[in-house]
Amino acid sequence: MPRIILLTGGHTDPGRAKTAVNLIRYKPSEIVGILDPTHAGQSCQSIFGLGGDIPIEASYDALPPADTVAIGIAPSGGKLPPDLRAQVLEAIQRGLNLISGLHQFLSEDPEIAANAAAQNVTIWDVRKTLEREVANRVGIDERCLRIHTVGQDCNVGKMVVSLELTLALQKQGHDARFVATGQTGIMIEGSGCPIDAVVSDFVNGAAEKLVLANQQHSILLIEGQGSLAHPRYSAVTLGLLHGCQPDGLILCYEMGREHVAGMEGVPLKSLAAYRFLYETMASLMHPCRVIGIAMNSRRYTDEQADEERQRLRRELGLPICDVLRHGTEELAQAILHRGWEIGKLSKDHL
Amino acid sequence: MPRIILLTGGHTDPGRAKTAVNLIRYKPSEIVGILDPTHAGQSCQSIFGLGGDIPIEASYDALPPADTVAIGIAPSGGKLPPDLRAQVLEAIQRGLNLISGLHQFLSEDPEIAANAAAQNVTIWDVRKTLEREVANRVGIDERCLRIHTVGQDCNVGKMVVSLELTLALQKQGHDARFVATGQTGIMIEGSGCPIDAVVSDFVNGAAEKLVLANQQHSILLIEGQGSLAHPRYSAVTLGLLHGCQPDGLILCYEMGREHVAGMEGVPLKSLAAYRFLYETMASLMHPCRVIGIAMNSRRYTDEQADEERQRLRRELGLPICDVLRHGTEELAQAILHRGWEIGKLSKDHL
Repeated sequence: MPRIILLTGGHTDPGRAKTAVNLIRYKPSEIVGILDPTHAGQSCQSIFGLGGDIPIEASYDALPPADTVAIGIAPSGGKLPPDLRAQVLEAIQRGLNLISGLHQFLSEDPEIAANAAAQNVTIWDVRKTLEREVANRVGIDERCLRIHTVGQDCNVGKMVVSLELTLALQKQGHDARFVATGQTGIMIEGSGCPIDAVVSDFVNGAAEKLVLANQQHSILLIEGQGSLAHPRYSAVTLGLLHGCQPDGLILCYEMGREHVAGMEGVPLKSLAAYRFLYETMASLMHPCRVIGIAMNSRRYTDEQADEERQRLRRELGLPICDVLRHGTEELAQAILHRGWEIGKLSKDHL
Repeated sequence: MPRIILLTGGHTDPGRAKTAVNLIRYKPSEIVGILDPTHAGQSCQSIFGLGGDIPIEASYDALPPADTVAIGIAPSGGKLPPDLRAQVLEAIQRGLNLISGLHQFLSEDPEIAANAAAQNVTIWDVRKTLEREVANRVGIDERCLRIHTVGQDCNVGKMVVSLELTLALQKQGHDARFVATGQTGIMIEGSGCPIDAVVSDFVNGAAEKLVLANQQHSILLIEGQGSLAHPRYSAVTLGLLHGCQPDGLILCYEMGREHVAGMEGVPLKSLAAYRFLYETMASLMHPCRVIGIAMNSRRYTDEQADEERQRLRRELGLPICDVLRHGTEELAQAILHRGWEIGKLSKDHL
């Protein structure tokens, strides 16, 4: 088991620091500490709302022994922030291996690569991919139930919802499998495809390949990316949606979010509009519908979240919950029901 | 001016040999011959329906002197067909420079690269791109009219329609500019972005950058790619559509085509369905509508083409023509009208 130090560059927002937050959430035993001079001495729990007493320190010396450093932030565009370079180089000098989900590959950075070679440390560029196959629509096993999380925007919880539902279904005895499509999901799962780093002609093909590689399981929970209406990332979203040919979609959104994150000039649309868009586009390839709504109500109280939940349930007529606040029961049930409805799961599964 | 020999690997179908066909159409004075043992001795005109007496021969020795060889075919997946490798290597031995639009870069093929270096010949991998910027929606000049060709499938004529309309508008004195987004268009125009070779996270950004780089012109004709309903390439199509934020779309289709080319199991949809899809998806970013239909009626007689043209005109209520058969007048007029309608062109332009 690796002993990992996370670099967060002082970021604490779960959007920007999403890799760190989710490694803490899903791999707590592997995270020995966080290097962040800005928040040194504070507790992980107080900064990120999870992680208990994982230490946050200003220097490697003050942190527990480790063998690996992971870049814990996901900047738009995926470049290495200048202030992290020194921390990366120091990690190499200390003989720590590197894990990075940036688009800018550490293994192709001349200074970093040369130092890593000299110190004999490994670099895992999670987003490095050589996918070069187009989609062929051959060999898809229609007994496997394909569920895909989609969203109104980036950073609304698609990965968390996919993971939580996988874990819940597994706990109920179902043969469910999480299929990672983003850097953080791949770090957590240890496999997957960084779909946003694939050359665009091969995005649909890479998504199809993920299905082919995992369809021996009964239920796939395929992590979504971006949004069909995202000015930056809609290409990624559609290629993934078309390539994985889902039977059902879980529409993820963040309560209270009004604009595309980082693009104040771009208002978000109604959930009904996203539902229509995703169902229309997905069904071009394979019959598909939205089977539930996953809300991310982290900025609100229980009462406010429950009020919105009841209102949307009435308006949209769909199962809805915040998987971290309300549990996964309602959406897990919706998945099993969808599987039964289209004949991929038997009545015994319900 | 380069003196180019085209390699077609025996292909004559204008889908597969589309680079060759369109270099012959738009750069006839630069094409000295075609290397194709299968059709050696036949005339270019009889094989491709254009190109007059450009010679087709079985060997370099039988062809006129040249300084460049271009791969004239566009195989799905973009790999170098094995039977072309020997012809490429012989070209290098003869000191000919290489132009390739394949995804598999000739400059990164160890054998080809080593031989090219030894013979001091250049390799232009048209699809090689380092686009790494996300879309930002900053600096777009709303005085520039953006027209985008979209389609029911690949290889229906989007590039030809964009080029023909650009030439026609220029001839009428308008400041129109063709914006190339594919390998053949880039070879013809000498600039552009191979959008399907861009990493998917940056496709929208690369398309936006093309607009920013060309918006000093009054009218842009932006070449489309693939189709929103294409199982393989829809990611490319949507990223381009969203990134270039068109004011108007010209919907291109091939008369009589019933299935996605190369995917017999995937039937095409009605033109009304594509119109709805493209307008819906484009308008998520910027108000947009389909302003005309470009038919590709190459497999039919004048009479058959005219009959379908009249029928669709009635059904869809849109200008429609085959730009190679009927001329560009009707669609050029539709573009100017769209520009006037949204206040980007004055009445004088009509």
